Amino acid sequence: MQEMVKGKDIRIAFGLAVKESRLAKNISQEKLAELAHLDRSYISELERGLKSASIVTLFKVSKALDLLPTELITLTMEKNPENQ
Amino acid sequence: MQEMVKGKDIRIAFGLAVKESRLAKNISQEKLAELAHLDRSYISELERGLKSASIVTLFKVSKALDLLPTELITLTMEKNPENQ
Repeated sequence: MQEMVKGKDIRIAFGLAVKESRLAKNISQEKLAELAHLDRSYISELERGLKSASIVTLFKVSKALDLLPTELITLTMEKNPENQ
Repeated sequence: MQEMVKGKDIRIAFGLAVKESRLAKNISQEKLAELAHLDRSYISELERGLKSASIVTLFKVSKALDLLPTELITLTMEKNPENQ
């Protein structure tokens, strides 16, 4: 039987992927927010897995981090405990 | 100067990617909804680009279509006019 996809796990994994990518590029939350045309408080909530990102946000954040959307999703999959 | 990511374009591209993948697997909207634990009407709206999918929905729909989330995002990028 197919298992349910756990939304909270994916939100947390995506948040970690964003935070790690941002820190690797030495960009502040403020700078990322500015580049992605999003609020700084929203970036903070995303990184902590408190807010659910849309696909559009995925594309905005990826572009701001100079990554492909698929790269951010690959990182998210690696951090999702369901895949461990 | 960095261009804005166009949300409507991405919603439409993602909807086309889902619809095309679903039809390639010969699955009805009803069946996809059942496999992904989502409403049939929501799948219909997603495919027409009327609703914005979350990352969690991306993972649910990918799993239901037996695709990797990155495969569905790659298809979305191919269908996004910004990339043409």
